[in-house]
Amino acid sequence: MISTPDNVRIVEVGPRDGLQNEPGTLRIDDRMDLIERLADSGLMHIEAGSFVSPRWIPQMADSDRVLQGLKRRHGVRYTALTPNLEGLRRARDAGVREVAVFAAASEAFSQKNINCGIDESLQRFAAVCEAAQQAGIAVRGYVSCAMGCPYQGPVPTTEVARVTAVLISMGCYEVSIGDTIGTGTPRQVQQVLERCMAKTDASQLAVHFHDTYGQALANILAALQLDIATVDSSVAGLGGCPYAEGASGNVSTEDVVYMLHGMGIETGIDLEALIQTGHWICERLQRHNLSRVGLASGAGTAEEESS
Amino acid sequence: MISTPDNVRIVEVGPRDGLQNEPGTLRIDDRMDLIERLADSGLMHIEAGSFVSPRWIPQMADSDRVLQGLKRRHGVRYTALTPNLEGLRRARDAGVREVAVFAAASEAFSQKNINCGIDESLQRFAAVCEAAQQAGIAVRGYVSCAMGCPYQGPVPTTEVARVTAVLISMGCYEVSIGDTIGTGTPRQVQQVLERCMAKTDASQLAVHFHDTYGQALANILAALQLDIATVDSSVAGLGGCPYAEGASGNVSTEDVVYMLHGMGIETGIDLEALIQTGHWICERLQRHNLSRVGLASGAGTAEEESS
Repeated sequence: MISTPDNVRIVEVGPRDGLQNEPGTLRIDDRMDLIERLADSGLMHIEAGSFVSPRWIPQMADSDRVLQGLKRRHGVRYTALTPNLEGLRRARDAGVREVAVFAAASEAFSQKNINCGIDESLQRFAAVCEAAQQAGIAVRGYVSCAMGCPYQGPVPTTEVARVTAVLISMGCYEVSIGDTIGTGTPRQVQQVLERCMAKTDASQLAVHFHDTYGQALANILAALQLDIATVDSSVAGLGGCPYAEGASGNVSTEDVVYMLHGMGIETGIDLEALIQTGHWICERLQRHNLSRVGLASGAGTAEEESS
Repeated sequence: MISTPDNVRIVEVGPRDGLQNEPGTLRIDDRMDLIERLADSGLMHIEAGSFVSPRWIPQMADSDRVLQGLKRRHGVRYTALTPNLEGLRRARDAGVREVAVFAAASEAFSQKNINCGIDESLQRFAAVCEAAQQAGIAVRGYVSCAMGCPYQGPVPTTEVARVTAVLISMGCYEVSIGDTIGTGTPRQVQQVLERCMAKTDASQLAVHFHDTYGQALANILAALQLDIATVDSSVAGLGGCPYAEGASGNVSTEDVVYMLHGMGIETGIDLEALIQTGHWICERLQRHNLSRVGLASGAGTAEEESS
């Protein structure tokens, strides 16, 4: 029988990674509302904003106002992406207690995404980590393109493991291994994770899957079987896929939670409340709900329908 | 590392289970064309029609003409659903070499779906199996509602295992265990299958998952880990879900094959040809493609896009 952790921590990335890849731009009060609704549904870790230039990512403009303005729930972690020291300074001024840095395992993606190579980006993140530590701010790391790159194709697993270990050595408390283009399949997921686990403990690893090819839940199942207990996901599948129009991006939190709860794995999340939040944000963004659980709910069982 | 079979046989159910749950009705030559295209893509087992009353299922009317008219490929099995002796007679007259009988593990579903209880249905199928054997026709069995029922809710695993074993004892060479409402999750899948495997060898079991809650690929992965090597699926996710409007039904063949090939598991299928067939049938039916692989393909990698 499948062996998995008993508890899984979901890192909800919809309000940042999700919204920044949506075509529309939400009002600031809607962004705060989204984050508060997610926390109300029991999510304890929410990526809430990004301190990048609004010229590049207008969807994340005014993240300081979002992070300062939202009603914080006790015990919930609100993370903000900070690409550099300037971002960290702004995040700190906004009272942020946790930031994230976003590295890539693909040289080509790093160049195209942040205009510098992997090693140069790691130097930049080292400075962010050091300054964050001095300010008592926790740092989470990302490694993107862990299963493949939209520009260079295959990515060596050794490089994923190396970048992960470097981020941990800089002081990241956890690194999220990301399948940015969603092409990974379960055996590859295990190969990449096992390579990472040779240098980094499973408790310091998270997984971040895109459902572009429908593989995300199977990949999460493969990761759970290696004792990975932290999963990134996005309510209603917010985010789409920048590399394939109309296709899915981030795996939807509803679908992940449905699977975990079905397997008896605890998350602390109220799935019904989460589904409602998914419907709410899709209405706000006037977009299709990409969560299969979201789509299927509302219809219920045949008996409920006829009652 | 995940252990699975090296080869998986896909049973393509789109032309029967899929089309009969689509709102539109295809022309006979389009139905034949679909089946031939599927065989051309390397599928070796295709559910091609159904000998039920066209009053109940107009989409399957003239299945005799479909099965008699299509160009048969050597080695490909074309199955037809036969609910009773009358259906079997018509199938035999149409030259069908393999039929399928459709039982349920849920008493309530059996009553609503075929107007008789499980045991009465099994008596009917025993007669079909006996007559089929005399005519040298192979019989495949289905057990629906194996993970839950839209009318009665939970379904005892003991009942799934019992009905499966009865079908095998009647002469079915294989029984496909169906999650009709798509609510199953990986641990439950393993529980149901292990219960079945106490009475029936894994080589005589197939799995049939619906993707209504996005769980199908994870569930297939769980089944593969129990050495189940036969998987039902439907090109482009044909079929929808009769219990939740707009939601998915049958898992799409493209998504299954993508996962299997990604895991190094052989199917003999040309995924690219299959994806094209998925797009073609969706155009014919003027419906949305429910295969995530189908949706993501066409966009390709960023380099392909810019070239």
